[in-house]
Amino acid sequence: MSLWEGRFKEDMDDLVKKFTSSIAVDMKLYKYDIMGSVAHAKMLAKCGIIPPGEAQKIIQTLEAIQKDIEAGRLTFDGKEDIHLAIEEEVIKRVGETGKKLHTARSRNDQIALDERLYLRDEIREILHLIVDFQKTHLELAKSYSEVILPGYTHLQYAQPILLAHYLLAYFWMLERDKERLKSCLERVNVMPLGAGALAGTSLPIDRDYVAELLDFPKISENSLDTVSDRDYLLEFLAASALLMMHLSRLSEDLILWSSPPFSFIEIEDAFTTGSSLMPHKKNPDVAELIRGKTGRVYGDLISLLTMMKGLPLSYNRDMQEDKLPLLQTPEIIKESLRIYARMLKNTKINTHQMEKEAREGFFASTDLVDYLVERGVPFREAHQLLGRMVKYCLEKGRRFQDLTLEEYGHFSPLFEKDVFERIKLKSCVFGKNSPGGTGKRSLKHQMELAKLRLEEKI
Amino acid sequence: MSLWEGRFKEDMDDLVKKFTSSIAVDMKLYKYDIMGSVAHAKMLAKCGIIPPGEAQKIIQTLEAIQKDIEAGRLTFDGKEDIHLAIEEEVIKRVGETGKKLHTARSRNDQIALDERLYLRDEIREILHLIVDFQKTHLELAKSYSEVILPGYTHLQYAQPILLAHYLLAYFWMLERDKERLKSCLERVNVMPLGAGALAGTSLPIDRDYVAELLDFPKISENSLDTVSDRDYLLEFLAASALLMMHLSRLSEDLILWSSPPFSFIEIEDAFTTGSSLMPHKKNPDVAELIRGKTGRVYGDLISLLTMMKGLPLSYNRDMQEDKLPLLQTPEIIKESLRIYARMLKNTKINTHQMEKEAREGFFASTDLVDYLVERGVPFREAHQLLGRMVKYCLEKGRRFQDLTLEEYGHFSPLFEKDVFERIKLKSCVFGKNSPGGTGKRSLKHQMELAKLRLEEKI
Amino acid sequence: MSLWEGRFKEDMDDLVKKFTSSIAVDMKLYKYDIMGSVAHAKMLAKCGIIPPGEAQKIIQTLEAIQKDIEAGRLTFDGKEDIHLAIEEEVIKRVGETGKKLHTARSRNDQIALDERLYLRDEIREILHLIVDFQKTHLELAKSYSEVILPGYTHLQYAQPILLAHYLLAYFWMLERDKERLKSCLERVNVMPLGAGALAGTSLPIDRDYVAELLDFPKISENSLDTVSDRDYLLEFLAASALLMMHLSRLSEDLILWSSPPFSFIEIEDAFTTGSSLMPHKKNPDVAELIRGKTGRVYGDLISLLTMMKGLPLSYNRDMQEDKLPLLQTPEIIKESLRIYARMLKNTKINTHQMEKEAREGFFASTDLVDYLVERGVPFREAHQLLGRMVKYCLEKGRRFQDLTLEEYGHFSPLFEKDVFERIKLKSCVFGKNSPGGTGKRSLKHQMELAKLRLEEKI
Amino acid sequence: MSLWEGRFKEDMDDLVKKFTSSIAVDMKLYKYDIMGSVAHAKMLAKCGIIPPGEAQKIIQTLEAIQKDIEAGRLTFDGKEDIHLAIEEEVIKRVGETGKKLHTARSRNDQIALDERLYLRDEIREILHLIVDFQKTHLELAKSYSEVILPGYTHLQYAQPILLAHYLLAYFWMLERDKERLKSCLERVNVMPLGAGALAGTSLPIDRDYVAELLDFPKISENSLDTVSDRDYLLEFLAASALLMMHLSRLSEDLILWSSPPFSFIEIEDAFTTGSSLMPHKKNPDVAELIRGKTGRVYGDLISLLTMMKGLPLSYNRDMQEDKLPLLQTPEIIKESLRIYARMLKNTKINTHQMEKEAREGFFASTDLVDYLVERGVPFREAHQLLGRMVKYCLEKGRRFQDLTLEEYGHFSPLFEKDVFERIKLKSCVFGKNSPGGTGKRSLKHQMELAKLRLEEKI
Repeated sequence: MSLWEGRFKEDMDDLVKKFTSSIAVDMKLYKYDIMGSVAHAKMLAKCGIIPPGEAQKIIQTLEAIQKDIEAGRLTFDGKEDIHLAIEEEVIKRVGETGKKLHTARSRNDQIALDERLYLRDEIREILHLIVDFQKTHLELAKSYSEVILPGYTHLQYAQPILLAHYLLAYFWMLERDKERLKSCLERVNVMPLGAGALAGTSLPIDRDYVAELLDFPKISENSLDTVSDRDYLLEFLAASALLMMHLSRLSEDLILWSSPPFSFIEIEDAFTTGSSLMPHKKNPDVAELIRGKTGRVYGDLISLLTMMKGLPLSYNRDMQEDKLPLLQTPEIIKESLRIYARMLKNTKINTHQMEKEAREGFFASTDLVDYLVERGVPFREAHQLLGRMVKYCLEKGRRFQDLTLEEYGHFSPLFEKDVFERIKLKSCVFGKNSPGGTGKRSLKHQMELAKLRLEEKI
Repeated sequence: MSLWEGRFKEDMDDLVKKFTSSIAVDMKLYKYDIMGSVAHAKMLAKCGIIPPGEAQKIIQTLEAIQKDIEAGRLTFDGKEDIHLAIEEEVIKRVGETGKKLHTARSRNDQIALDERLYLRDEIREILHLIVDFQKTHLELAKSYSEVILPGYTHLQYAQPILLAHYLLAYFWMLERDKERLKSCLERVNVMPLGAGALAGTSLPIDRDYVAELLDFPKISENSLDTVSDRDYLLEFLAASALLMMHLSRLSEDLILWSSPPFSFIEIEDAFTTGSSLMPHKKNPDVAELIRGKTGRVYGDLISLLTMMKGLPLSYNRDMQEDKLPLLQTPEIIKESLRIYARMLKNTKINTHQMEKEAREGFFASTDLVDYLVERGVPFREAHQLLGRMVKYCLEKGRRFQDLTLEEYGHFSPLFEKDVFERIKLKSCVFGKNSPGGTGKRSLKHQMELAKLRLEEKI
Repeated sequence: MSLWEGRFKEDMDDLVKKFTSSIAVDMKLYKYDIMGSVAHAKMLAKCGIIPPGEAQKIIQTLEAIQKDIEAGRLTFDGKEDIHLAIEEEVIKRVGETGKKLHTARSRNDQIALDERLYLRDEIREILHLIVDFQKTHLELAKSYSEVILPGYTHLQYAQPILLAHYLLAYFWMLERDKERLKSCLERVNVMPLGAGALAGTSLPIDRDYVAELLDFPKISENSLDTVSDRDYLLEFLAASALLMMHLSRLSEDLILWSSPPFSFIEIEDAFTTGSSLMPHKKNPDVAELIRGKTGRVYGDLISLLTMMKGLPLSYNRDMQEDKLPLLQTPEIIKESLRIYARMLKNTKINTHQMEKEAREGFFASTDLVDYLVERGVPFREAHQLLGRMVKYCLEKGRRFQDLTLEEYGHFSPLFEKDVFERIKLKSCVFGKNSPGGTGKRSLKHQMELAKLRLEEKI
Repeated sequence: MSLWEGRFKEDMDDLVKKFTSSIAVDMKLYKYDIMGSVAHAKMLAKCGIIPPGEAQKIIQTLEAIQKDIEAGRLTFDGKEDIHLAIEEEVIKRVGETGKKLHTARSRNDQIALDERLYLRDEIREILHLIVDFQKTHLELAKSYSEVILPGYTHLQYAQPILLAHYLLAYFWMLERDKERLKSCLERVNVMPLGAGALAGTSLPIDRDYVAELLDFPKISENSLDTVSDRDYLLEFLAASALLMMHLSRLSEDLILWSSPPFSFIEIEDAFTTGSSLMPHKKNPDVAELIRGKTGRVYGDLISLLTMMKGLPLSYNRDMQEDKLPLLQTPEIIKESLRIYARMLKNTKINTHQMEKEAREGFFASTDLVDYLVERGVPFREAHQLLGRMVKYCLEKGRRFQDLTLEEYGHFSPLFEKDVFERIKLKSCVFGKNSPGGTGKRSLKHQMELAKLRLEEKI
């Protein structure tokens, strides 16, 4: 018989029991449920609601239960949820005293506490993994500080850039992810216990003490809102969706770059798999899976947004279905960051192939525009002049570097001998020194900024 | 060492192994994987690709493996996926012969086969559960054929209707769900094996024979499309999202109706739960959970749509992430239909309360409009006249049935004594006999139509 | 003053008027609203509810209004919605008689009629555009029936295939899109008028006659369901999401193939755009925009699914927000199909580059496996043997076609001179003649099947 | 001819022109495009890239163009986008000089600037609207500080609460929305111009000066990331989705409360609409539309998440499709907040009906539990004892307040006369004074906290 079945006349239908049970998923929260119950029991004693000795007994029992769970000696299959399962176990072990644990508490505020404790840990771990991944990017950027890569827009060759500049682009995306998660953490890190079912309680509890015990900087301000709220999780899921979107873009580039026509990189064998049929295959599975898992995280976000839409206040049972997103998304994020940090370090860069491709096409076209602009030609005119030069080259099957000065002269008398210096690949790349640009000086400054960010406290 | 690792120099990183493994989920497909392998082996023998005796041996081994799995004697923890796990087990048991099983086959077409076999079974089961649920609606409609209910638009009382009419509204929603799933099943029920990795094979296989063995009415037409395609699953998820949307609306009404201010129904204790804190609570949890699970199914749909977006042909590893939606959504649908069919039958209808509420408000207003229209007043004029009558009643705190004939006369001389007959609750409901209307004759006809539909073959 | 404001004491707040008005979008349905009103008026006359002469007058007025709208002489800015706007205009033009038009009708069934009429037309047009696009694929497949292309899985070269085979993969995807839309059309093509606000009517209307006039094969069966239902639109949006997903994959391949490292195709200038800054750029914008618009269609689907989730029966004003998806998605689909059919025909195929790339890598590896399998080597053994050959080649920097027979002999004595014939590119492609395979005979058969499908009535 | 068509041989296909054009939507950004161009021109002059006099001429022309647009004298129908349209117009008006405006700039960084300027303004306006709406809640909470309301969980009566407490629940939700938007604003408020197409520029630009002119606290750190990034918009859309989710919940409650069986509130006529068919209807359309528009905002979020998923770096044309979400979602948010603030103030509270309903049911059950707990009964035992009391009352058709002390005694000897004081409705509500609870003292403190928040700078 369930703990709340006092008023009911018949046994719960088995099908219903299975349908309404959440133990299969919320079991994973056992540690946080116990942590919360320990703090709650301490507070009940401190406030004189239960005798200190009984609180002590409850706490010891809770700790013993945790050990038993962790040793695999205790499971809760068939129970309704983790909260009732643990409370029942306490009662089973210490009798009457155990029946005092749930005083001044409801599952509505209890689950909010468990989820917030759990999510706080997960976010902190993710923040560290992001920093690790950023470090990987920064280190690789240092190692490849002179490697030149064709920069694409529309997947068409646009301008040559430094590989280091490319790598740092991801550094800054991750930096924003970090900022978002830190901001989200502030709203996660709020102590909900004491909201009761929805209205608070008339018993003389001390919510600030519980917050202190559990290291929360503040308590929630409105009990009704507290039990109705899943913003903390939604905001985490939204931040996660953006993070995965970033990783999906990195995946796309890695998949492209390891595709034979590109051949910019070779992923270590350890991070690829082969084919059950085709013995020659070596597939960038990790990158593909991460790109695919992006869909899972988007799905988690939309599923919780849908659940919460249009729910009347306050708690509704629909909200129990938040468990899958709660448990699944942090796992995907952590795995993806961890595996990518290692994989990136173990990826061979074919610098020769990158540079070879970077020399193809009309990589210097904007530099030639700038050359003319510096000599007084209005930008738009210079742009159109270059358009004609490109057309000319395409017809003749040549590149800028193949033209003679005479040919340059056909397009503009402003071209002089120094133009050949200007259209060298390195000149084009190293010279783009506007702040945030791919030029050598800019890059150096960017790296310093990145380094400073990594020194900030998480 | 994995079966495809011939070309690799180093062991797979453990983290990668875990990350790329799908065994934890695709294990659930073991039955279909074996079913497919048995048919494949038969075909290989029939076509002379492997000797009949060896095929026989493979088949017996596969059947033994199935028995071992079902008896819990064989698990595949730590394996990469169900396909390799079973093939490895076959090889382990019969040696060299087992190495012939995967001839002329790739995991790309094999997983498509497993998924289609599985989904075909699931859809068929769901179709039966829909029919059961429709029967419940039709039976209840019969039992409550004269109960009158306030019909709402905008959750404001609009016109009185028959409860039977309300119940049948869901019958027709489910009928469309059935049609969609049957239509989807046609595209699921296509045999993919023989597409190989993406290009077919030069070995003399007989795909039609495999289709015959596995009871598929046709084979897929293009090998490249076959291994790239997840339409069958997406279409199923979309049909499921609509079905769950329907159930979420039913849930909403049941939750409303069991809320004290409505009190139209009382759900059996067996289908409700109580509160850990408040001893008096009896909550419509099943309805809430089904409404909440709608979000899960929407999430599954969007996750697979996202995964498939922008993938180049043909197979990409992203597609492995289709497993969670594949396994989760059918489960949710089946559980929800099963539990709702039982719950609906076990719900007490407070017919008295429904009728009481139906007598409130200006339920006869459109009937009075029609009364005037029948006497030659243009509809829009009659409509405005009634608007004035409503305002008058609101000011006087009265209802249409409380007005005297004289008062009626103030609004229009066309009102005669028979107006009182017309504004009786039963007249208003029973008389709306346009086809599909809530009137008694219409309802009888509608029930006959519904009965005919249930007689159709699924 | 609005037509329904009889009971209200104060003017509608302007902000509210703007907020609740839908005229800006539903104006686009005017043609269908008038078409429906004409049929409704005819029916009212036929059933003796309004005099034939008055119906005639209404109909003529409606037709005049349509002409005035189409000539730009009549606009409805500031009106609440298209239904009231047109009814008001009729009343303005013909006085009292006009007030009879809305007899036995509600905006709830009227908007359902407008939407179904509109969507029916849109779906039919889309079906024709799909067929056009399929024809393009089939014609191109014929033109390029011997061009060989590297076939990719995981964006790694897997096996060589025919370009025609690739093109037909999209033919079959589109075929499924067509099937889904045709199936959806059956549920769109149902006549809702006569459901009234939610309960039907007591007036002696003839819904079958309206259906006949508007060419609907059947009428809706339950008035409550009829006004609550948006399945027809949701199902269309889901089918559209799949279609766009297909186009997003084609886009991805076209973008890849026109990227310099691939250079498999060159899109006509007319279908590309340049850069505001870089004079040499030529971007595959059309393909990118179509890939991007996929997001819009997914968004439309999720927005309507969200809107409908958990709504109580019957009509709720939330449903008015279905207009944007209703009007936007068909437009995106039609534009995308139209522009892609033209673009594909105007794309230059670099057959030389495709074949050159197809000769790279170990394209014959499965053929060598099959060679050994045909000579009795168990598949899995042959697969591993080939794995070793690949590793050997990689170390020596050679390809299968560069090895001597002696070197082949090191791996297996079964290799004989005929192996060199077998590993020719054409042998590998043309020989994969399993049904649906890329082989020449298979392809011929596939093309015949495709041709037959195009001959089917839409 | 377009400004970038130098290299092209043929005219753009008309269909393509229409398909790739974004002017219909980005026209709305004209003000920000001009603002950005003015700052850019000033910077070019300051850095000596163009002569000060020419910059002056360009700036004056841009200002004249803005006036012409705002006066309706200038439209850009048929143009490709707002950036080219304005640049062309400048060139048309000032000739050669105008051709210098686009120096050291690309549309890629220009559109990022326009969007960020626009979004910054929108977010600031939304923040003010949120504060207004919070003020409304706080004022109403003050006005209704003693009104008692049944508090629901699972839409079942749980415990009585103060209406003021209910209203403040929304205050805190909005507070979180505000925090999220402020945090988002930090990442929006970053100056992107100078990133060029993707690599920065070799011209000696001064990005910090542009930032200063446009009041940006900082500039973006990496040019590649800058043109690839739409995080700022995605984050805004995610925050908006949560905000709309909150409003959808408020809508749900308002719709419920204005439904006849509840009748807790009456919305002013000005914020409702009537029925085209049923003269007595008065519908809570505004609340329904806001609930429905939630779907639109979710759809915008998912559409942009989908668009960005898997895009290779850097800019891709897919990103142009961000315009609809960019323009639509802020509009929906602003309208919804504005209209709700006014509507809430104009809603009549039926305090009598709320209290009447609050007296129904077993509102004091947790208070009786607490009564027993205070007298030493273990909570779980007290809870079960109350369960039996509820069952007893249900069987006898009585409420706690109807029982005699003797009857209380049957359940526990601890019940004394003071129990009747404890179960008074006001005692139950006013006494729940745990921090954040619904009790009178707690509420007072909560209101002070809320007031402090409103005094913070936005």
